[in-house]
Amino acid sequence: MRNALYFQSGGVTAVIGATAAALIAAHKAQGSGRLFAAEHGLAGVVESRLFDATALPEAMRLALSHIPGGGLGSGRTLLQAFDDNPGQWARVRDVLVAHQIGTIYVNGGNGSMDTAAKLVELGQRLELPLQVIGLPKTIDNDLEGTDTSPGFGSALKYLAVSLMEAARDHCAMATKPSVFILEVMGRHTGWLASCGAIARLPEQMVAPLMLFPEVVFEPDRFIEAVQHSFSRHNACVCVVSEGIRTADGRFYAQQNASGRYGYEQLGGAGFAVAELLRHTLSVKVHVAVPDYLQRAARHVASATDVAQAEAVAFHAVQLAAQGISGVMVNIVRDSNAPYAWHCGAIPLADIANRERAFPQGWINQQTYGVTEEAVSYLKPLIQGEPSQPWRDGLPDYPWVQWPKV
Amino acid sequence: MRNALYFQSGGVTAVIGATAAALIAAHKAQGSGRLFAAEHGLAGVVESRLFDATALPEAMRLALSHIPGGGLGSGRTLLQAFDDNPGQWARVRDVLVAHQIGTIYVNGGNGSMDTAAKLVELGQRLELPLQVIGLPKTIDNDLEGTDTSPGFGSALKYLAVSLMEAARDHCAMATKPSVFILEVMGRHTGWLASCGAIARLPEQMVAPLMLFPEVVFEPDRFIEAVQHSFSRHNACVCVVSEGIRTADGRFYAQQNASGRYGYEQLGGAGFAVAELLRHTLSVKVHVAVPDYLQRAARHVASATDVAQAEAVAFHAVQLAAQGISGVMVNIVRDSNAPYAWHCGAIPLADIANRERAFPQGWINQQTYGVTEEAVSYLKPLIQGEPSQPWRDGLPDYPWVQWPKV
Repeated sequence: MRNALYFQSGGVTAVIGATAAALIAAHKAQGSGRLFAAEHGLAGVVESRLFDATALPEAMRLALSHIPGGGLGSGRTLLQAFDDNPGQWARVRDVLVAHQIGTIYVNGGNGSMDTAAKLVELGQRLELPLQVIGLPKTIDNDLEGTDTSPGFGSALKYLAVSLMEAARDHCAMATKPSVFILEVMGRHTGWLASCGAIARLPEQMVAPLMLFPEVVFEPDRFIEAVQHSFSRHNACVCVVSEGIRTADGRFYAQQNASGRYGYEQLGGAGFAVAELLRHTLSVKVHVAVPDYLQRAARHVASATDVAQAEAVAFHAVQLAAQGISGVMVNIVRDSNAPYAWHCGAIPLADIANRERAFPQGWINQQTYGVTEEAVSYLKPLIQGEPSQPWRDGLPDYPWVQWPKV
Repeated sequence: MRNALYFQSGGVTAVIGATAAALIAAHKAQGSGRLFAAEHGLAGVVESRLFDATALPEAMRLALSHIPGGGLGSGRTLLQAFDDNPGQWARVRDVLVAHQIGTIYVNGGNGSMDTAAKLVELGQRLELPLQVIGLPKTIDNDLEGTDTSPGFGSALKYLAVSLMEAARDHCAMATKPSVFILEVMGRHTGWLASCGAIARLPEQMVAPLMLFPEVVFEPDRFIEAVQHSFSRHNACVCVVSEGIRTADGRFYAQQNASGRYGYEQLGGAGFAVAELLRHTLSVKVHVAVPDYLQRAARHVASATDVAQAEAVAFHAVQLAAQGISGVMVNIVRDSNAPYAWHCGAIPLADIANRERAFPQGWINQQTYGVTEEAVSYLKPLIQGEPSQPWRDGLPDYPWVQWPKV
């Protein structure tokens, strides 16, 4: 079982291609066996849609590291419990054996780390000499056991830059009280909403009001805060997490959607909050929903994030060479200022299917802001502008032609 | 009347600060009188909220040229007809006389050029020695009489880059037929929707389907096109103009909003089209609405656009020095390849309140695409990446402290 396999799982990021490219380089450098890459995650493994990543020409490997979305295809298929789907396990085993795969690198978030843990179990139960190493990836930053995850820093930077720019526009047009809302991803956690705390806005403006899923959304109290902000500046800027909930535990967006519009998927949280403010304060509200743009904005990636996306791949190959299995590579922070970090490892069992919330203690519920401690944590993650090839006025993102097996 | 006045009018852009900064430099270079800048457009003139732009420190003037949103404050107040509001005219006259203003630079779009034309009339009727020069500005590119307008090229570039990146993400996740929609601004015109034609996407994908307000939106025909695209690739990408209308002339977004959700402002065209596709094709649809982000994205501005934003200011000062009045500076294209252009002038009467649509002949109604001629027109406008100061991982956008008069 001298070969290795890499696949991506869950939502992709702006820098997951950097992880893939670094893994290929590291695997080739350690010298033995081929590295296969499966198309569209575990489904590609099950269906034996594998590429020979070690045969990827070097120029294409370098290009891959700059392409958002990973250039390979991720997927949301997870490995089920053995008893629920023994056929799926048998199919995975057959593919591993047929390709002499002894090492699997799973690049994903908390759900994917459960699949990684199950692959360890698969090796034991089906008596395969299998090593499984997880590589972290999520823009949501909700992975336990790691200081941060590749993808988050770049999404955070994109949102902070966007907020700075939109706020300037909003300021220029605010001849009377008006609100700009940026709706951000993050599912049940508010890590990306904290972009409001690191965006450098004029002190003449009110600091952005941030709505976190970790705090119950109280419409009346929020309306008061918006109203109060108008005593300082006409231009109020808010960051709204897609997953905010009211005291009854229901998503605010879905309440509005089902209650008023009859269609659950239509209204995002940003639009629901906008409607609330329009109706109660009669103010003009603009809403931006970057959606995929926030997780794909490679042109404004964080160099720190890119470095970490590459480092986790190099560390994974080192761990594999040491015979280690059943762990996810993590990022360990040594200090905030100067920012220092290194890669370590953490058992998959400690992180699979868990979700790391934005710390309640970092949220200032009075000001709809965050603490200095939160800012100290966040700031290093967006540092540095990586160089990026441009051609004819656009980023150069070639299509990766993966060599067939 | 040895001084001059500058104000911005209508929605701002990523490069309007570059026009303002260049105008200050050009005015100072020609040597006589002060240049005042009014806060928040004509309202700032009427209320005499003027700054001394000539006293702006040089470092701040340079910073201004990099700040999105213009750093001054624009507004939507227009000069009314004399008979409708003689008091407004008298107030403007008083401010002009008090500050010895003989030249007015109006930086705006088609509505603002009507105000510029009325200021010419004001000078004649109230017997002031007044020169009025318009400077073009709009992300919508809907100004008549000019090949393009500063602000458009950068918005187009931002949208093309965003579409390229989001499409890569969408491709990576498209394990079954699914749609990504980018909703773009442009009001009644579809110039910004043409970002779908210049975004460089993999030829493996289907070219983006573009919905222009200039073409009647036929839901059934569009659904067929989306369905057809799935025979080539699971990932379908659409660009939807905010102003698309059905055969009865009604906005598609508003129809949906009033018919189903009871609130007119909530549903954007992108969400309405998304709902249509979800209901008829049962596919997953993601929608991005960049809103202000598309007109403020200075970090990914077009160097060509920045150069034109500066050139119109230099040319305006030259025209003023020649005693010319009642014109807007325009951009004249000399050739597509190599791209060559120069500044000229066009009578305000020829452009005020008119609206330039995206040419019907450039739209391919069968493919939801555009012609090669359209691409040849568009491509030069997004060329070049201007250098931009960054600090601590974010663009350096200081707050402009305007010197009091």
